[in-house]
Amino acid sequence: MKITQKIGLSLAVAMAFASTMLSAQDNTAAPSKPKTMQEILEASKADDWRQLDPNNTLYMELASGRVIIELAPTFAPEHSKNIVALAREKYFDGLSINRSQDNFVVQWGDPEEDEKKRRSFRLAKQHLPAEFTRKSDGLAFTTLPDVDGWAQHVGFVEGMPAAKNAVTNQAWLTHCYGMVGAGRGGEADSSNGSELYVVIGQSPRQLDKNITTVGRVIQGMELLSILPRGTGPLGFYEKAEQRTPIKSIRLMSEIPQEERTAIEIMRTDTDSFTQLIEARRNRSDDWYLAKAGHIDICNVPIPTRPIKK
Amino acid sequence: MKITQKIGLSLAVAMAFASTMLSAQDNTAAPSKPKTMQEILEASKADDWRQLDPNNTLYMELASGRVIIELAPTFAPEHSKNIVALAREKYFDGLSINRSQDNFVVQWGDPEEDEKKRRSFRLAKQHLPAEFTRKSDGLAFTTLPDVDGWAQHVGFVEGMPAAKNAVTNQAWLTHCYGMVGAGRGGEADSSNGSELYVVIGQSPRQLDKNITTVGRVIQGMELLSILPRGTGPLGFYEKAEQRTPIKSIRLMSEIPQEERTAIEIMRTDTDSFTQLIEARRNRSDDWYLAKAGHIDICNVPIPTRPIKK
Repeated sequence: MKITQKIGLSLAVAMAFASTMLSAQDNTAAPSKPKTMQEILEASKADDWRQLDPNNTLYMELASGRVIIELAPTFAPEHSKNIVALAREKYFDGLSINRSQDNFVVQWGDPEEDEKKRRSFRLAKQHLPAEFTRKSDGLAFTTLPDVDGWAQHVGFVEGMPAAKNAVTNQAWLTHCYGMVGAGRGGEADSSNGSELYVVIGQSPRQLDKNITTVGRVIQGMELLSILPRGTGPLGFYEKAEQRTPIKSIRLMSEIPQEERTAIEIMRTDTDSFTQLIEARRNRSDDWYLAKAGHIDICNVPIPTRPIKK
Repeated sequence: MKITQKIGLSLAVAMAFASTMLSAQDNTAAPSKPKTMQEILEASKADDWRQLDPNNTLYMELASGRVIIELAPTFAPEHSKNIVALAREKYFDGLSINRSQDNFVVQWGDPEEDEKKRRSFRLAKQHLPAEFTRKSDGLAFTTLPDVDGWAQHVGFVEGMPAAKNAVTNQAWLTHCYGMVGAGRGGEADSSNGSELYVVIGQSPRQLDKNITTVGRVIQGMELLSILPRGTGPLGFYEKAEQRTPIKSIRLMSEIPQEERTAIEIMRTDTDSFTQLIEARRNRSDDWYLAKAGHIDICNVPIPTRPIKK
């Protein structure tokens, strides 16, 4: 019995409300209908896609697989530089994922409580400025047409979900699922990138403008989001053996070409991506009976695909 | 070494952006500040809390523990009745969780593809009307003060996140983290409650008004949200052994008193809850430097606590 048959009926029911997956129904859309996401992807051109910058991309290696993180130097230049320095000095290798709080974040770094006993830095800086916001002037924004309760405008900048306020001339990354930030203490400038978290639930947008957001998980979220929740306060693990060891975090450029993951990402500053946003605002799949006419910045998928050899 | 010491520094960093957890900082708030969530909970009265209706609450028993689901007969009367009938006839016992799609849903029911071979119903109905929306007239709504892009108004009805449109006189439950719905196929009325899903990621609000939402997970989300993602289409498991067996799903009223979980839930139609919403719209914790002045319906926590003996 084929796998597709085994899950037949359940799949039919499920396909009904497919998330970012491509539904077979999409192929049957009448020509008069607005394009579906699948049709937009199929019609996309080579330059609608971009490859990751090897000097701006991290590979986090776990026993379960590879997590790929793209940094956001446009929004957090100092943190990005420092995280690259930490990766170069192999700071994270042998450290662990220490926290998994349901519907909030998974966090990694040095689990040692005593700051003096924590792993020291060789190349990276201990102290950085807070990078909660930056100037919005001059940023190329693919703006969503829809209202956002948390910000004046939201959209995409260089492949990252972002927000801006033209009055205050501020822009910042939005805390969507998969966004990575730098944990801090009470002081605004108390993060240095050695303790990182990723959003694993409903977007905690109240963190926007309150913490430095450093990038986004491009692939491998499903390795982080399923980690058993910690039973200590804030989802910290209570026993050392519950932590997930980090084999390494490396800059992609330091990985031999043949060991790199060959994926590319849809550019967010293209007509194709604007069409994709529209396709998700108003689903033309037959299954959807009520069209939303709206989308939240954190509900817009940013497609990836294998690079064709 | 005490556990609290072991995670000291990391905890300090993390406490910074505590989600629904109560922060030690809250206790130090000056009297002039707006109340924090912890202060509101501490000041709450007995009748700010309610117990679950044993005839409207399901216990889903997994090897890993108990998931508690409150049904929403106010919004889905026929589905709620049918799910109760399915639980009474032990329909779900020995079935399994068949799907886990990252940032979307976990789904359970009969994995059998051939509809004729699926477990038959004894008491429950095979066919139900679609219950996507209901009349908003007469519903007691605790309305959020903030804009929502997906609906004219959002708020809470009987402990559930909901939306309404006064013009069309429609109300519906919103697809927030932890909300439970009844999977359907292409036809609006093709769900009967025997295949259920729960939201495990960013709220997929595009499903609102497109599917029958039947309730909410009150406790145990962390048992469902960590299930390894299925590698088949839409997150279905490809092998039978990857599925999580369901030991049983029982109506709470059928469980002996001494085996019931003694928790109570904050009522959403109280001054205390309105204060809590405000405390989450503008966090008064010292850590927050930029107050949001906004909250999304899916970011409002609905507190639970053990029942005092």
